[in-house]
Amino acid sequence: MVAVAILAAGRGTRMKSDLPKVLHQLGGRSLVEWVLESARDLQPLRKLVIVGYGGDQVQTSLVAKYPDAGLEFVEQKQQLGTGHAIQQVLPYLQDFTGDLLVLNGDVPLLRPHTLQQLMTIHKQQGNAATILTANLPNPTGYGRVFCDSKNLVKEIVEHRDCTEAQKQNHRINAGVYCFNWQALAKILPHLKADNDQQEYYLTDTVHDLDPVMAVDVEDFREIMGINNRRHLAAAHEVFQEWIKEEWMDAGVTLIDPDSITIDDTVQLEPDVIIEPQTHLRGKTLIRSGSRIGPGSLIENSEIGENVTVLYSVISDSTIASNTRIGPYTHLRGHANIAEGCRIGNFVELKNAEVGPKTNIAHLSYIGDATLGEKVNIGAGTITANYDGFKKHHTTIGDRTKTGSNSVIVAPVTLGNDVTVAAGSVITNDVPDDSLAIARERQIVKHNWRSNQPQD
Amino acid sequence: MVAVAILAAGRGTRMKSDLPKVLHQLGGRSLVEWVLESARDLQPLRKLVIVGYGGDQVQTSLVAKYPDAGLEFVEQKQQLGTGHAIQQVLPYLQDFTGDLLVLNGDVPLLRPHTLQQLMTIHKQQGNAATILTANLPNPTGYGRVFCDSKNLVKEIVEHRDCTEAQKQNHRINAGVYCFNWQALAKILPHLKADNDQQEYYLTDTVHDLDPVMAVDVEDFREIMGINNRRHLAAAHEVFQEWIKEEWMDAGVTLIDPDSITIDDTVQLEPDVIIEPQTHLRGKTLIRSGSRIGPGSLIENSEIGENVTVLYSVISDSTIASNTRIGPYTHLRGHANIAEGCRIGNFVELKNAEVGPKTNIAHLSYIGDATLGEKVNIGAGTITANYDGFKKHHTTIGDRTKTGSNSVIVAPVTLGNDVTVAAGSVITNDVPDDSLAIARERQIVKHNWRSNQPQD
Amino acid sequence: MVAVAILAAGRGTRMKSDLPKVLHQLGGRSLVEWVLESARDLQPLRKLVIVGYGGDQVQTSLVAKYPDAGLEFVEQKQQLGTGHAIQQVLPYLQDFTGDLLVLNGDVPLLRPHTLQQLMTIHKQQGNAATILTANLPNPTGYGRVFCDSKNLVKEIVEHRDCTEAQKQNHRINAGVYCFNWQALAKILPHLKADNDQQEYYLTDTVHDLDPVMAVDVEDFREIMGINNRRHLAAAHEVFQEWIKEEWMDAGVTLIDPDSITIDDTVQLEPDVIIEPQTHLRGKTLIRSGSRIGPGSLIENSEIGENVTVLYSVISDSTIASNTRIGPYTHLRGHANIAEGCRIGNFVELKNAEVGPKTNIAHLSYIGDATLGEKVNIGAGTITANYDGFKKHHTTIGDRTKTGSNSVIVAPVTLGNDVTVAAGSVITNDVPDDSLAIARERQIVKHNWRSNQPQD
Repeated sequence: MVAVAILAAGRGTRMKSDLPKVLHQLGGRSLVEWVLESARDLQPLRKLVIVGYGGDQVQTSLVAKYPDAGLEFVEQKQQLGTGHAIQQVLPYLQDFTGDLLVLNGDVPLLRPHTLQQLMTIHKQQGNAATILTANLPNPTGYGRVFCDSKNLVKEIVEHRDCTEAQKQNHRINAGVYCFNWQALAKILPHLKADNDQQEYYLTDTVHDLDPVMAVDVEDFREIMGINNRRHLAAAHEVFQEWIKEEWMDAGVTLIDPDSITIDDTVQLEPDVIIEPQTHLRGKTLIRSGSRIGPGSLIENSEIGENVTVLYSVISDSTIASNTRIGPYTHLRGHANIAEGCRIGNFVELKNAEVGPKTNIAHLSYIGDATLGEKVNIGAGTITANYDGFKKHHTTIGDRTKTGSNSVIVAPVTLGNDVTVAAGSVITNDVPDDSLAIARERQIVKHNWRSNQPQD
Repeated sequence: MVAVAILAAGRGTRMKSDLPKVLHQLGGRSLVEWVLESARDLQPLRKLVIVGYGGDQVQTSLVAKYPDAGLEFVEQKQQLGTGHAIQQVLPYLQDFTGDLLVLNGDVPLLRPHTLQQLMTIHKQQGNAATILTANLPNPTGYGRVFCDSKNLVKEIVEHRDCTEAQKQNHRINAGVYCFNWQALAKILPHLKADNDQQEYYLTDTVHDLDPVMAVDVEDFREIMGINNRRHLAAAHEVFQEWIKEEWMDAGVTLIDPDSITIDDTVQLEPDVIIEPQTHLRGKTLIRSGSRIGPGSLIENSEIGENVTVLYSVISDSTIASNTRIGPYTHLRGHANIAEGCRIGNFVELKNAEVGPKTNIAHLSYIGDATLGEKVNIGAGTITANYDGFKKHHTTIGDRTKTGSNSVIVAPVTLGNDVTVAAGSVITNDVPDDSLAIARERQIVKHNWRSNQPQD
Repeated sequence: MVAVAILAAGRGTRMKSDLPKVLHQLGGRSLVEWVLESARDLQPLRKLVIVGYGGDQVQTSLVAKYPDAGLEFVEQKQQLGTGHAIQQVLPYLQDFTGDLLVLNGDVPLLRPHTLQQLMTIHKQQGNAATILTANLPNPTGYGRVFCDSKNLVKEIVEHRDCTEAQKQNHRINAGVYCFNWQALAKILPHLKADNDQQEYYLTDTVHDLDPVMAVDVEDFREIMGINNRRHLAAAHEVFQEWIKEEWMDAGVTLIDPDSITIDDTVQLEPDVIIEPQTHLRGKTLIRSGSRIGPGSLIENSEIGENVTVLYSVISDSTIASNTRIGPYTHLRGHANIAEGCRIGNFVELKNAEVGPKTNIAHLSYIGDATLGEKVNIGAGTITANYDGFKKHHTTIGDRTKTGSNSVIVAPVTLGNDVTVAAGSVITNDVPDDSLAIARERQIVKHNWRSNQPQD
């Protein structure tokens, strides 16, 4: 039985931001959301978020994202240190008898696996407290953790208090703790702030608990805290490296992986090829044999097998197999493309169902429309879905062809095998197998240019 | 007289792919094609590709690419080691009296120069075998090669059999060998598989040949083998670094070279400037003074002097000097642009000849067309080249101007100095110097908006 | 009182360029312009640019950029070394009694702060000469500077003349000097060229001056000289790293900073977010809360608060707050967009004033136009601003709506609350509140497709 407390009260002055630090985004989630995600597999009974600076903003943001998670928000009016923060939790956990996991809202890269390992050891060993440690190449500024051979913590010494010999110890306190709550609750009220900063440190409780054990994190980059925008960029890079290595190991070819970003919510099948400067976001799935990019952005979309996407933007849409998209296509708002289509150059689709083997190859806007199979949409065709007041629907039957620069004014239905003449504005329904035309005949005025005023 | 044998039978399980490993692509060629290319300058008399997993696929792919290369495909039904692979060659080279160069189909970065050096030393010294070695910063896993001061090989010890002292030797066996074939052929049938893997190792032949000499590769990255997609990405990076350094040394400015990719088949003149996120592929030539990118893809195209290309995609096309392309232009299928043109925003050209000083500046599709000089194509002009059944040709004379949103319905010819009125659909030929118009007069209905139903 | 002499006479053979080396561009300025900028805060009384190879080109280029800077161009006909170069200055500074700062035209990364520090120490200490030194990780090829504990220079030894012990000194001569001009002028005529290169070295004057002091540069990358295109790319990377770190420290989020470039003339407010592969150039200002990119290029433009720009190109334009741009928009030539607009897909604006809450969402070209507020420009609308001879202006009133694929032929004025029917070509002014229409009625020919010849 575990409760989680997340320290999320700090302002993060060095972020130089109107936004509370823990709400800054890192690849699709805020920092504090990442911290919540890292603990999710532990299925905590209680989830306490300690808020202070911008607390309302943090609360609103988290409740919007996790409406049913039962988050509890604990106010820390003044920020007087980590110990002070956890003291605020006391009234909330009066009868709680399990363990308290303390996480930092600005440490977004901790992996679920790491926390599970920490918790497992904590319980197996019956520790009063278990703290996460890391071996840093450059530990300057961090408190050093000294243990015996069984990883029992003997002492934690702040960097500034270390002797030169002690500084050679690169094992540092990551600031992640699991406490036996009852044991902690007893000593928490007696914490003292007798230090330079006049803050209450959670670390100080370690002296009064026994046994306290240290557990090393596998990859020290997991404990990276975000205090400024450089850190944010660095964390992004680490996080992306992990995700991209995982997909490469799963059989995805990434060409110039450094230039690609992939959200952790994306799914890729083997033998997908991602070209440079491509960004995959949200709940996106790309099936085997597809080639995406360069220069494409795909968000919350599903791409079938053997699809090519070149220099295009796709959001909230689906594309079936063997379809070619781009260059310079924008699919959005539930554009659903069947198999074997070609959606091309300078084409925008919004809220459209497109049947198999249909081509929309050039300079078209198709919105709020249903298209059959083997339709050919001529270059420059536009569905006029908006009459200035409401959006209306267009239906186009199988094998129908629209001429170049035609306008289909919704609401309207074109039947099967219809031909629309180039340059026509279609305002009335057109029955199957017919030609719709709405244009003047061509006339020619001779010797015209010669009669014009010249510059 | 040299024969080349390429080991290309492995599946490459860690690639997690349906494709045989050696067919994975690296910047325009498959891995095994790169290996063939690395040996091309040696003009080998025989080229034997030893295939196994996906052998038909490998053979089909290579024959399609090198139809006249006289490739011979040798089947290795079971993959029982490198020695076993070369044993399969015995029936093919019964009367062969030259040298056999053994290459790995998954080592794509070996440079022709390196193989020439290996062969030269092999012949000059009259070696029974000459093996390629490399000094790796991290040699873990590789067999170590121990030589005397004359580079004569005393011993090759697998990593797992090395003493700690032997592990300090970072000179490793790169797996590339040149054998006196007659000498090798004698001992090859007697290879034993008395090791953990129960495989026949080509390395074991070294004990029975004399003299065997080692030759170091200049850049150890050349011998990088591709076993998974991370390796593929790493090889891509190395390969691109080489190409890009070469072009910088030749007088090409690359802005943010890491973000640029250039195929080895591309030619660039001095004082070309390549902006970030630009990709040059296939048989592309760019002449002096041109500036390409950012965000452009150019494939199999020739770009003249002092051309600018901004955020555009160009394939199978040519552009003469002093022309401006983009942003957001797509040239394809033999779009040939003369000097001094401006091809602009949201414009697609396919199979089109465009005369000098012609402008196609906005939102146009020009396909299957011949345009004269000083033509001005109005915004939104479309050549309707497809009648739903066939593609037809459009011809537009010198100094002709098309109005905005006009459609030119092919087959049709517009003469010189023609003016096409905006919004016209032109279906019949237009003689020189005339105005073609096909539209209704404007009428106005007053107080119209006030009489509409309001939301 | 300081004079600056910039050595800019070299050809830069390894650049392999028709352009003199110092005119190569680095992020918005030529190399020699950067050097001038680095000395600007010193307010030098005289600015002498010593030119040789391509001297006319260098002079023309600098005078065009700094017409009022009072630059003096000193010709060095033959390039016989740095000492020879400064000898050419003698006739120009005959009566000058201040200090001479010697800079290299191919060392563009020196920071103003560094030069100010050098000058301050020079003056405070009353030195005859003060030279800039750097501690290089790899000093191979550089002359080593040997000082006493007070940084007084004892000796400068060229790399090739160094003993092994001397080579352990990594403090090198950066080639940047401040001289007491009167002291230097006396010895300058007596310089000898008794060395392998038969060149006159400015370093040799150090022996005859006293005291000579060395000042270390903070970041050794500042003194990087540009001799080839690899150096140019490396300098670009360093320079960009500095700029981007500065903006991150100021509260700007950069996602994948390596893929972004920002000119030093750009201003960014806190809480701006820059997405990957975005390039900000010239005098660009982006206000708080805006999100730019991916894949965008913004040049000499001002972007208000809470604007989003996605895959777009913007130059010489302004965008007010809360406007959404892109994907695939091109704003140029003074397109000024008010607040709350949506400028969308495949839209180009040139020299246009757009009122608040106006939408131009799809496939439009709007040039030389003034649009009111709450205008809705239908997809495919084009302002025909060019009659083949001149550009004309279009005025569109508040709340006016144009139908899809309509053409507005300038010069023309549409009033307020006008509706233009889809597919209409508008050539005459339209009064307030009216409908303008210019098209044929739709007719239908039945059984049409069945009667067509089939393939």
